[in-house]
Amino acid sequence: MDSDYGVPRELSEVQQNRTLYQPELPPCLQGTTVRVEYGDVAIAADPAGAHVISHAYPHTYGQPLAHFLRKAANVPDAKVISEHPAVRVGIVFCGRQSPGGHNVIWGLHEAIKAHNVNSKLIGFLGGTDGLLAQKTLEITNEVLSSYKNQGGYDMLGRTKDQIRTTEQVNGAMATCQALKLDALVIIGGVTSNTDAAQLAETFAEAKCATKVVGVPVTLNGDLKNQFVETTVGFDTICKVNSQLISNMCTDALSAEKYYYFIRMMGRKASHVALECALQSHPNMVILGEEVAASKLTIFDITKQICDAVQARAEKDKNHGVILIPEGLVESIPELYALLQEINGLHGKGVSVENISSQLSPWASALFEFLPQFIRQQLLLRPESDDSAQLSQIETEKLLAQLVETEMNKRLKEGTYKGKKFNAICHFFGYQARGAMPSKFDCDYAYVLGHVCYHILAAGLNGYMATVTNLKSPLNKWRCGAAPISSMMTVKRWSRGPATTQIGKPAVHMASVDLRGKAYE
Amino acid sequence: MDSDYGVPRELSEVQQNRTLYQPELPPCLQGTTVRVEYGDVAIAADPAGAHVISHAYPHTYGQPLAHFLRKAANVPDAKVISEHPAVRVGIVFCGRQSPGGHNVIWGLHEAIKAHNVNSKLIGFLGGTDGLLAQKTLEITNEVLSSYKNQGGYDMLGRTKDQIRTTEQVNGAMATCQALKLDALVIIGGVTSNTDAAQLAETFAEAKCATKVVGVPVTLNGDLKNQFVETTVGFDTICKVNSQLISNMCTDALSAEKYYYFIRMMGRKASHVALECALQSHPNMVILGEEVAASKLTIFDITKQICDAVQARAEKDKNHGVILIPEGLVESIPELYALLQEINGLHGKGVSVENISSQLSPWASALFEFLPQFIRQQLLLRPESDDSAQLSQIETEKLLAQLVETEMNKRLKEGTYKGKKFNAICHFFGYQARGAMPSKFDCDYAYVLGHVCYHILAAGLNGYMATVTNLKSPLNKWRCGAAPISSMMTVKRWSRGPATTQIGKPAVHMASVDLRGKAYE
Repeated sequence: MDSDYGVPRELSEVQQNRTLYQPELPPCLQGTTVRVEYGDVAIAADPAGAHVISHAYPHTYGQPLAHFLRKAANVPDAKVISEHPAVRVGIVFCGRQSPGGHNVIWGLHEAIKAHNVNSKLIGFLGGTDGLLAQKTLEITNEVLSSYKNQGGYDMLGRTKDQIRTTEQVNGAMATCQALKLDALVIIGGVTSNTDAAQLAETFAEAKCATKVVGVPVTLNGDLKNQFVETTVGFDTICKVNSQLISNMCTDALSAEKYYYFIRMMGRKASHVALECALQSHPNMVILGEEVAASKLTIFDITKQICDAVQARAEKDKNHGVILIPEGLVESIPELYALLQEINGLHGKGVSVENISSQLSPWASALFEFLPQFIRQQLLLRPESDDSAQLSQIETEKLLAQLVETEMNKRLKEGTYKGKKFNAICHFFGYQARGAMPSKFDCDYAYVLGHVCYHILAAGLNGYMATVTNLKSPLNKWRCGAAPISSMMTVKRWSRGPATTQIGKPAVHMASVDLRGKAYE
Repeated sequence: MDSDYGVPRELSEVQQNRTLYQPELPPCLQGTTVRVEYGDVAIAADPAGAHVISHAYPHTYGQPLAHFLRKAANVPDAKVISEHPAVRVGIVFCGRQSPGGHNVIWGLHEAIKAHNVNSKLIGFLGGTDGLLAQKTLEITNEVLSSYKNQGGYDMLGRTKDQIRTTEQVNGAMATCQALKLDALVIIGGVTSNTDAAQLAETFAEAKCATKVVGVPVTLNGDLKNQFVETTVGFDTICKVNSQLISNMCTDALSAEKYYYFIRMMGRKASHVALECALQSHPNMVILGEEVAASKLTIFDITKQICDAVQARAEKDKNHGVILIPEGLVESIPELYALLQEINGLHGKGVSVENISSQLSPWASALFEFLPQFIRQQLLLRPESDDSAQLSQIETEKLLAQLVETEMNKRLKEGTYKGKKFNAICHFFGYQARGAMPSKFDCDYAYVLGHVCYHILAAGLNGYMATVTNLKSPLNKWRCGAAPISSMMTVKRWSRGPATTQIGKPAVHMASVDLRGKAYE
């Protein structure tokens, strides 16, 4: 499994066959005479936040939408980008790997070379660390050959999803200037794209010539807004996980004695859990958004599951599959409050050993009530976006324990008459995260890569590549770009009756829409 | 995911397409004039055990091998089973589900009906419980229609793999007599087939007319001997798991900061872990058989892993994938001894709460050294075959903790200079166990089902259906049957210098052959 960056590696037969697949381009991107047309000025969806955003992004907010169209016969040449100077472009994987990421690079490389063979695409090795340390690899057909349509981010590697501190931003700028980059393409999710927008703004302010382009790639599927329909990797993750969940359903139905509690990777939002539930029909799915909206406590959720188990037992069914999004723990009000307190103490530099003794009486009582394993997990240092280390917190085990205790109690009291409750816990995520991308993700990523070229050729800065109309066949896909700042929102917290704290503008993750079609 | 037994269920498109696949038969089983030829008397592989076995199985040991052949033109009709009276056959799933099980029933049903449409195949609902309670479902084309080539055991369900106590054996006999069964077909692994042999012997002794036939179906792949090449389900499990492990390798290589410890379902023997390692190339696999042969302690294994981690760090690799068979815990000498003590105390009726206080000083010291979570798991009641509840013991977490502690120590001492060691643990098993069977398992199970018919038509009792030459194309497969008792071995334990205790003859699981080709 080991390979060194850029060295052609040995592939299995399946992997080899995959490299032969050549995604197509929608008609608008075919040929080298793509036309760019500008639409309305893109405005933030939340009008109240627009003022804050425009203030924070004076150079990059308020730019128009861009659409990439086929050169029509009657369009004067002026509007067509007809000169194709050689360009130097850097590209970096930010944050967690997502199936399809490699195809963004492939698509961009194809587009760059098709327009001018002297252009260069430079990959940063080891993610953001490589960007700051100027560790590079020139992308060539040979480098790409064994990574086309393959999963993972191992062609270039990745580290953490952060180009945020002044030092980091200055380091990135120094690299772009040293390498004389015309553009820097950032592949990532909500946090990386927020960072990309900030970089674009800082570069513009500093008159750095490098344009910054973001690409929506994250398996969580939570980078969704008025301009972005879905992210690269989400389709693959849902398909692979749904297959495994279906296997679990068959297994539960065969064994007839277990409840499988399956926690699904996917960060705070429950998109992956919801989509997998739609594809695989488990017995129950608990959505974080629903829990948050109804302010359900951990005890309410336990009771809901227990009631469902009891109702099933009355129909002689003593088995089932329950999906739990990994972000659930942050949607449960009292656990979220506890995590916030712990987070605050981390921020104050309190060591892990001392945190529990400094909690408020209320939080302390809850903390002491929880099983040992989950206490340790709640104390882990938060991620770079201040959220808890969701992948490490075994909410499914906590729920399974609480449900088991309650079912045993009901069994003793005689209110529950089924078989002894047996839970087995699982975490599905890593095994899908490295999967080979689905055909959709191969195509979508490849087309996004091409779109990146047209964005930088048009000289746009602080834009995200977008492809819309994705539910239609590929030849109907629409390609464009939208300023990342226009996707931002501003969070407000009320602190007492008269004061409201306003957060920094950011691309926030989209929650599952409880009024949406999928949820129904 | 819920269905009631025998009620045609709704299938997904993929499942529907699967039902259309029709496995072929090898030439020897085509048509209705299959010839049976008897070979040598089948003798137990271990001559020292033969005497004990023949004593325990007077009616069923020492029978000849049977081969099913195509009727040749020049063979007199006498040797051909040319009359095909209507038969009544029962079939039951014993023990854990394994992909392909449904096709055994399909194959048997096809063969039975092809020879006489008035024959009946009766499935027992809910496994051995249904056998004892006479809960039946007549197998028809309609019942089968939605289960052809599908995973799981949900057409009939299963409970535990035990028809062993006098009460259970008598119950099974009562059912066979009440339903006037000509034969009872038992689908299962090593323990179920041992039970099948015992049933056959008891039935013969009691002059019960029902013949007992066993079929080798278990995902563990540990029912392997001079007559049986592999079991139904093993191929699927290894393929599905290898795919997931390959995903993990891609993931580890992309993240470059984690060691994934993956425990593989597969009971005591390490066949699944070894085969998956061969298919997916993880960085390390720890085989129980190797550990047992070299008498490695948990500390030896920890050190081996740490040394490998350190050596990889020196090559700037701070990630990897390590496979651990679920049976490893029973292969580590000191943990096995501890489990044996706990098991003995369970046998004496000591309650779980009191076991730890009654351990020998040596075992107690080890027990107290172990982390809390693993102590609880080691105290679980053993399985019906007296082994520990391997699927519930998180050996991978124990090893990950020990390795982490040691690596932190080496980091402090300066002997290890890599990144901070990070382990993430996984258990792969359930998600593959319910998978759709591979083409090989579909074919193998279907053919074994047909072989069952020819065994019972020949009036054989206590035989297992066998198909050999499986590595050749299907048209070269050889079909036959071997007495289950000839697959048995007898275990001996020395108890002091002069006394040797002899176990009951049983079909024992085959370990990975450390001198075998696969292992090299």
